[in-house]
Amino acid sequence: MLTLLLKEIRHNPLLWLLVFVPAVLAAEKLAPDAHTLLFVLSVLAIVPLAALLSHATESVAAKTGDAIGGLLNATLGNLTELVIALAALRAGQYMLVKASIAGAIVTNTLFMLGGSFLLGGLKHHVQEYNRMGARFQAGLLFLATIALLIPSAMAGADRAPGIAFTRTLSLGLAVVLIAAYALSMLFSLRTHPELFAGAAHAEDEEVPWPLALALPTLAGVTVVVALVSEVFVESVQKAATEFGMSPAFVGFIIVALVGAAAEMASAFSGARKNRLDLSVGIALGSASQIALFVAPVLVLLSYVMGPAPMDLQFWPGAVVMMLISTLTASLVTNSGRSAWFMGVLVLLVYVIFGMTLYLLPPAAQ
Amino acid sequence: MLTLLLKEIRHNPLLWLLVFVPAVLAAEKLAPDAHTLLFVLSVLAIVPLAALLSHATESVAAKTGDAIGGLLNATLGNLTELVIALAALRAGQYMLVKASIAGAIVTNTLFMLGGSFLLGGLKHHVQEYNRMGARFQAGLLFLATIALLIPSAMAGADRAPGIAFTRTLSLGLAVVLIAAYALSMLFSLRTHPELFAGAAHAEDEEVPWPLALALPTLAGVTVVVALVSEVFVESVQKAATEFGMSPAFVGFIIVALVGAAAEMASAFSGARKNRLDLSVGIALGSASQIALFVAPVLVLLSYVMGPAPMDLQFWPGAVVMMLISTLTASLVTNSGRSAWFMGVLVLLVYVIFGMTLYLLPPAAQ
Amino acid sequence: MLTLLLKEIRHNPLLWLLVFVPAVLAAEKLAPDAHTLLFVLSVLAIVPLAALLSHATESVAAKTGDAIGGLLNATLGNLTELVIALAALRAGQYMLVKASIAGAIVTNTLFMLGGSFLLGGLKHHVQEYNRMGARFQAGLLFLATIALLIPSAMAGADRAPGIAFTRTLSLGLAVVLIAAYALSMLFSLRTHPELFAGAAHAEDEEVPWPLALALPTLAGVTVVVALVSEVFVESVQKAATEFGMSPAFVGFIIVALVGAAAEMASAFSGARKNRLDLSVGIALGSASQIALFVAPVLVLLSYVMGPAPMDLQFWPGAVVMMLISTLTASLVTNSGRSAWFMGVLVLLVYVIFGMTLYLLPPAAQ
Repeated sequence: MLTLLLKEIRHNPLLWLLVFVPAVLAAEKLAPDAHTLLFVLSVLAIVPLAALLSHATESVAAKTGDAIGGLLNATLGNLTELVIALAALRAGQYMLVKASIAGAIVTNTLFMLGGSFLLGGLKHHVQEYNRMGARFQAGLLFLATIALLIPSAMAGADRAPGIAFTRTLSLGLAVVLIAAYALSMLFSLRTHPELFAGAAHAEDEEVPWPLALALPTLAGVTVVVALVSEVFVESVQKAATEFGMSPAFVGFIIVALVGAAAEMASAFSGARKNRLDLSVGIALGSASQIALFVAPVLVLLSYVMGPAPMDLQFWPGAVVMMLISTLTASLVTNSGRSAWFMGVLVLLVYVIFGMTLYLLPPAAQ
Repeated sequence: MLTLLLKEIRHNPLLWLLVFVPAVLAAEKLAPDAHTLLFVLSVLAIVPLAALLSHATESVAAKTGDAIGGLLNATLGNLTELVIALAALRAGQYMLVKASIAGAIVTNTLFMLGGSFLLGGLKHHVQEYNRMGARFQAGLLFLATIALLIPSAMAGADRAPGIAFTRTLSLGLAVVLIAAYALSMLFSLRTHPELFAGAAHAEDEEVPWPLALALPTLAGVTVVVALVSEVFVESVQKAATEFGMSPAFVGFIIVALVGAAAEMASAFSGARKNRLDLSVGIALGSASQIALFVAPVLVLLSYVMGPAPMDLQFWPGAVVMMLISTLTASLVTNSGRSAWFMGVLVLLVYVIFGMTLYLLPPAAQ
Repeated sequence: MLTLLLKEIRHNPLLWLLVFVPAVLAAEKLAPDAHTLLFVLSVLAIVPLAALLSHATESVAAKTGDAIGGLLNATLGNLTELVIALAALRAGQYMLVKASIAGAIVTNTLFMLGGSFLLGGLKHHVQEYNRMGARFQAGLLFLATIALLIPSAMAGADRAPGIAFTRTLSLGLAVVLIAAYALSMLFSLRTHPELFAGAAHAEDEEVPWPLALALPTLAGVTVVVALVSEVFVESVQKAATEFGMSPAFVGFIIVALVGAAAEMASAFSGARKNRLDLSVGIALGSASQIALFVAPVLVLLSYVMGPAPMDLQFWPGAVVMMLISTLTASLVTNSGRSAWFMGVLVLLVYVIFGMTLYLLPPAAQ
């Protein structure tokens, strides 16, 4: 079994980065104050762990039936983001948790989708894909954006309601989002799977591992990701200040890119192979999964694990960016066709957001 | 003639609720301070009256020609909402008038449309309908939403303009909306009726009454609705406080559901019969009629009947909700196809709004 | 050569207005304080100059190859707007510059597009046009609107960032917009021109001039426009006060209509001839050109020519109007079909904006 894992590691250069896992854990013991070093090492360690986690999840999903496999894929597909966010939640860093939720939605919607369109379009003149899948995901994302927008919209009204209102509302919204997520799986896996034909899953890409390897890898790597995430969360803010980056930029862009590295590799390679269904599915699927599953689960867990209940009231700038991202995804996937310039347009929206967050003085966030 | 009316009442269980009409009028004399009782009785009385009013209007429309019939249907179709709003207008309760306008738009767009998609989708795997009609209504709704959004957007700017500006602007907007409504009827009934083929009217559903019955019913029931509406408007706010409901929730949700009960029954039954054209037409048509006809007429009438001119400046939260509803309707009806999950998505947006309004502390509205 | 120019002038009644060019320059010397007279004369003089400029640009473009011609057309097509804005920039009237940028986007998107739909629809029952071109321009416009919205959205957040942030961000956004514009030309002229077939250029309409006439006309008329623009900018605000118009109305509506008069004539005549591709291309193309080229160039030039750097932070009301205009254009051009009522809808949005700006008290802007 272990030989299979080693063979995988030999063939996938990304996994060579696993060497940074012991490095970061050692560095944390030896130099707990070298924040910049710890930040860089933890980023380098999370990327290959996320790739392993992603492959292990898909292997387990491939072995179980279609519906349970889909469920597994859906719940564990953003495990890395969830574990990082949990580390921040336990540390009471709610600003970072929220920034990473908003950032993951924006990054998956704009950077992953735009990058897929651009990379695919540079190789293929015009690409076509199944509009139904894209529309479905965009609809879910639209619902989630409304749910994440409402608490801020209400707080922004002239006479702001209190914290108790926002917390109760957030709890209710979390329940609505999880219900929507469960029903969306019932719809796409059980009652109307034929609408999503063509949007094949990522499993076809790689040889799935046997369960005897996949399950222990899933368990073991999750524990290691949790350990490294804790170092990451502790070091990220201080390192950011040293790099001259604003906390908003770190949460929105850096954490989101690190957490989504593994899915991004799949989405981009799908686009190059003219399988844009796959790329659009991964990009919008990840975004809607974070919005409809990871975010509400974090709200519920904050009652158990966090120092205080977390609400869903986001910084107004983040709400504007999530709203624009969802609208961009809706408009861009509406035609079911793509060429390179569409990717450029979507990426430039991401560049505008990144630039704004990079320049934003810390006090304004 | 009366036997026909009695036969109709015998066959339609909804009309048995008519017994609450004398009940509420008697209760108002005997116990004018039992607000909760008066509220419940008036709701139960308005529902069957709205159904009668709706049938009488359609019967008159069916007897006259196509164009005049359409005009009649269009102007009297939301007579119940208009009469309720007039009662609130005369009582000077402008907050309730505005909440019920915004609520009728949101409820018709989200609850009636989403409910039709869900109920139709539970019976039929995939349903198709005429996109042109839905697009036309969504376009009207979009124009109306812009008109209702502009006064609040201007008032929200850093240096708010005065009340005189808002009133003059609202008067101008009312004229623009009525002009748009008149031109929309010219377009759909006279110059381009063939675009709306398939979106047949509700008349086919029921046997129309002879004019000798329809006209007196129309006149008589309108008077009774006006009487009951007055009890309703007087009791609703106080009853709401006793029920622990916020005034915003009452205006937005309760009043809107009560006023639209009759149309809702037609829309849902059309969806079950796989006639989604009809359901979408009723839902979006009612919403755009309230936005383009009822709301501006109330502004104009406030100069004659109200204690002071009414403007179109809405509570910012209501503007956000109207905007999201219109956008949702545009995106959702864009494909001309529907399955049950689309209904769930639209209904969940409504649930999010309802929950927010229910939880909102009164001071924040 | 001059006889050709004179022949053109004889055949085009619009060019008879050229008589106002010497009139306004003379009046400026004789009566520099007659603001209303100078304003009216300068408007009457700019309209025919813009038409001449437009024809000269197209003639030069027709003589050079397709790609360079497109480039020329694209960069010089809104020369009038650019020259007027430069006059305002040098005078340090940044409010007027920004109002005229926002106004040009709104006017081209709503008035020129809506007018084309209405005029075309009054003659032809239903008109079809190439959706690809409209979608492409709407996408560019959408990107530009996001770029122009972000600085205001950030400044609107609870703790507003400083002027230094807004200026640096605006500089970065200007670079992003110019890059997007350059790439959009690479896409539409070089890599994917076949997508835009049918959206033929305006050259076909008129006989192009020989280069020996076009080039001197281009140079000479630009100088004259610059001279007249200076009179226009100096007189417009004071004349507006005398006419009882708010400065916002003047910048948004009057300046925009004057600057776009020549393109408007082409767009409307295209619509009458059932060549809606041409009309939609001119309307949305002009709007996106101003947003992606004229606006960022003005930001860059303000560092050289203006008294202080200009940023891209617009008055919130202008941002709302640009956003609604872009959304309207996206929704309306989505189907690729048009009838007269679509034009009415779009024009009524413009009427709502114009009315709001006309009524707005000066202090609120």
